Amino acid sequence: MSGRLIGVGVGPGDPDLITLKAVRALAGADVVAYFAKAGNGSHARAIAAAHFPPGAEEMPLLYPVTTELPRHDPAYRDALCGFYEEASVRIAERLAAGRTVAVLSEGDPLFYGSYMHLHVRLSGRFPAEVIAGVTGMSGCWSTVGMPIAQGDDVLMVLPGTLSEAELARRLAEADAAVIMKVGRNLPKIRRALAAAGRLPRAYYVERGTMVGCTAIPLSARDEAPAPYFAIVLVPGWERTA
Amino acid sequence: MSGRLIGVGVGPGDPDLITLKAVRALAGADVVAYFAKAGNGSHARAIAAAHFPPGAEEMPLLYPVTTELPRHDPAYRDALCGFYEEASVRIAERLAAGRTVAVLSEGDPLFYGSYMHLHVRLSGRFPAEVIAGVTGMSGCWSTVGMPIAQGDDVLMVLPGTLSEAELARRLAEADAAVIMKVGRNLPKIRRALAAAGRLPRAYYVERGTMVGCTAIPLSARDEAPAPYFAIVLVPGWERTA
Repeated sequence: MSGRLIGVGVGPGDPDLITLKAVRALAGADVVAYFAKAGNGSHARAIAAAHFPPGAEEMPLLYPVTTELPRHDPAYRDALCGFYEEASVRIAERLAAGRTVAVLSEGDPLFYGSYMHLHVRLSGRFPAEVIAGVTGMSGCWSTVGMPIAQGDDVLMVLPGTLSEAELARRLAEADAAVIMKVGRNLPKIRRALAAAGRLPRAYYVERGTMVGCTAIPLSARDEAPAPYFAIVLVPGWERTA
Repeated sequence: MSGRLIGVGVGPGDPDLITLKAVRALAGADVVAYFAKAGNGSHARAIAAAHFPPGAEEMPLLYPVTTELPRHDPAYRDALCGFYEEASVRIAERLAAGRTVAVLSEGDPLFYGSYMHLHVRLSGRFPAEVIAGVTGMSGCWSTVGMPIAQGDDVLMVLPGTLSEAELARRLAEADAAVIMKVGRNLPKIRRALAAAGRLPRAYYVERGTMVGCTAIPLSARDEAPAPYFAIVLVPGWERTA
């Protein structure tokens, strides 16, 4: 009688933006796992910890590498692949012992989240369920009160890790855009927006929905380094009537 | 002392996918407004009604037209514009009288939602807040357990109302795609996916997260009419290691 794997979206940061379903799943979990960078706290844990049941086993999953190696370096890929394999083995042991394992994800588990790497390794062997969460981008445009897209708008979600030329090309084709993974890519993103003629309406949001949130026109943002999870929004819709 | 306008995302359909913040906002509302088609029930009301406080005024906002007129017909635009103006006047009366008005939105209020038309008309005159919700697309890919995008993937959200040629062109450029507003556009969407070489991995989801959910490969779906809110998913990521 094996246990159950549950990928739990905990939302964009404000602890009140967690769903009732996530709260109930956590209440029934024997094990709560979450990703974190070694030496840093886990954001997802901070959002959801109030809902952990007494006595649950906590299982931090510590990335062996984050930005120390270039993403396209084979050593980076090997390190991450080995990490996901090892984490899956640890979780599989609990599932095989009949325990319910909740894996926390900031935002939504299957939208640019690490949980998917566990899901594809384990969902064929154990019962698995994914609980959708409010994404970081929804949290950001709601914080600003910015309608992002409507009607026939094409919305593009663009990783800020793309090249400047590709970002500019994509931005010129999008009605609305969300640029994720801003971090050290901010100067490049700003140049790409300018090249695509989209800088005037671009908005910069840092710590959206959280204490200490910053939400300002990108044109008013200096070039100081941005956090990795900062987001740039380009709305597709402007009130015309 | 004016009241407060709150756009409340109620999530994709499963009543448990509402957030704690939405539940708390509803508990404090004097008036709960929701959009619906005349003669039909409101999906958003069905999702959230358990949280309406006793004695709250319910304010259905009935679209004067939905699919009876072509979207680009000026008569359609005039009818909707007049409708949003009138709804804003009714809500402004309550706000001016000091009442808190919650406006329900399926999914997320500012993501292709009708609430934005009230927000732009009222948020300059009254205190306003938007509570992000889980989108319908997150609900759908979570139901399927399908990782939609990761790493450098570009995700495009495409309204199924676009022309076949534009859909095909966009799909050929996307790593991952979500096609919304499927409804009567299903045959066109299928042809565009085939033209872009993206049909084999496309998935069809109807009533995602709800009772009676259908989630099948699009190739297994017949050509019978689809509901307007059905979604087609094209994942960007496939496990390679």
